[in-house]
Amino acid sequence: MTFARVQRLKDVLARRQPDLTVLTDFVNKPHNIAAIQRTCDAVGVHELHIALDQGAFRQARMTSGGTYRWVPVIQHFSSVDAASHLRGQGFKLVAAQWSERAIAYDHYDFTQPTALIMGAEKQGVSPELTEMADEHLMIPMQGMAASFNVSVAAAIMLNEARLQRERAGCYQRSHLDPETFEKTLFRWLQP
Amino acid sequence: MTFARVQRLKDVLARRQPDLTVLTDFVNKPHNIAAIQRTCDAVGVHELHIALDQGAFRQARMTSGGTYRWVPVIQHFSSVDAASHLRGQGFKLVAAQWSERAIAYDHYDFTQPTALIMGAEKQGVSPELTEMADEHLMIPMQGMAASFNVSVAAAIMLNEARLQRERAGCYQRSHLDPETFEKTLFRWLQP
Ligand SMILES: C[S@@+](CC[C@H](N)C(=O)[O-])C[C@H]1O[C@@H](n2cnc3c(N)ncnc32)[C@H](O)[C@@H]1O
Ligand SMILES: C[S@@+](CC[C@H](N)C(=O)[O-])C[C@H]1O[C@@H](n2cnc3c(N)ncnc32)[C@H](O)[C@@H]1O
Repeated sequence: MTFARVQRLKDVLARRQPDLTVLTDFVNKPHNIAAIQRTCDAVGVHELHIALDQGAFRQARMTSGGTYRWVPVIQHFSSVDAASHLRGQGFKLVAAQWSERAIAYDHYDFTQPTALIMGAEKQGVSPELTEMADEHLMIPMQGMAASFNVSVAAAIMLNEARLQRERAGCYQRSHLDPETFEKTLFRWLQP
Repeated sequence: MTFARVQRLKDVLARRQPDLTVLTDFVNKPHNIAAIQRTCDAVGVHELHIALDQGAFRQARMTSGGTYRWVPVIQHFSSVDAASHLRGQGFKLVAAQWSERAIAYDHYDFTQPTALIMGAEKQGVSPELTEMADEHLMIPMQGMAASFNVSVAAAIMLNEARLQRERAGCYQRSHLDPETFEKTLFRWLQP
């Protein structure tokens, strides 16, 4: 572990955005979860929330490899419990979901505390979270397919969050509380 | 086949962008190719170019299912041949690739005739196409991982192309030549 490496870990930690997170609503393909987790890392999401049943979760964890270190996963067995927990922490619940009340994702202000809810390949966002969500966001499409792959949709929205947060200077000062910062750094330093 | 359905096929065809394409440079995971193809459809790419060896290609074709109908795949066994072919047709060769000469993807003018080159998970864009490319584009990252998943990176760039082309009115008039339009419609109408 070189000094430069430690410095890099600290710099990345100082850019983490604890008020931005993703909740996957029974998304079960391990490669999709892995891609979402990697994108989370790239835009500074500090923790990823996954609602999924136990067996599927274990498999996802095994496949996703490398990025588990950088973006810890908080596991939930119920989407509603997960969403209530996040709302209790001050997050706005924002579902990636076409609906009558959906607005274009780039008209949403991603500098707000935001938990982005992503739906599963077949079912989409569950009826409960569709109902609970404070906002619905959609990405315009020009083709025949009715939706993007879930990790693709998450990436388009999270990249917009990154752009808005860069413009707002959010990556320029540290947001983690000192204890979380030190604990995470300690974990990242483990071989 | 209802009248409304035929009308929808025609509307989508009228939004196809024959001067925008993607060339995957030995990207071999079928689920990545499938996700890229689905994103191509959503932004109006008319044909997808894949450089890959034969066996891997056949597997990709089988997995990707639904969207093969909407976005035909042109197969190449050599990346350099594929790129030369596209350059010969008037496309600018634009590699998604971090390098000294890379510019941020959202500073590139995607209303130009553009073939976006995407690299493989391990190797990235091949040295030959890195060299041949007219431009290198990169997506800024704020985390530890050194790159996005390839279908995620393609989506972020293609979505920017869609935004720019929407603003420029490119989806408002038909761009396919009449013969291609009719032939494609005929193919889409097959059960
Ligand atoms: C494959 S899609 C689900 C499609 C599902 N059959 C449905 O009807 O909702 C997986 C998830 O990606 C997100 N997604 C995909 N395309 C989207 C778009 N154009 N706008 C907003 N979210 C999208 C949504 O969260 C969706 O639940
Ligand atoms: C997993 S990455 C390849 C990483 C590879 N190890 C390398 O060193 O290039 C797969 C492809 O996605 C694209 N890509 C991923 N992240 C990107 C980024 N931040 N900017 C531009 N292209 C990116 C590039 O085309 C890359 O070749």
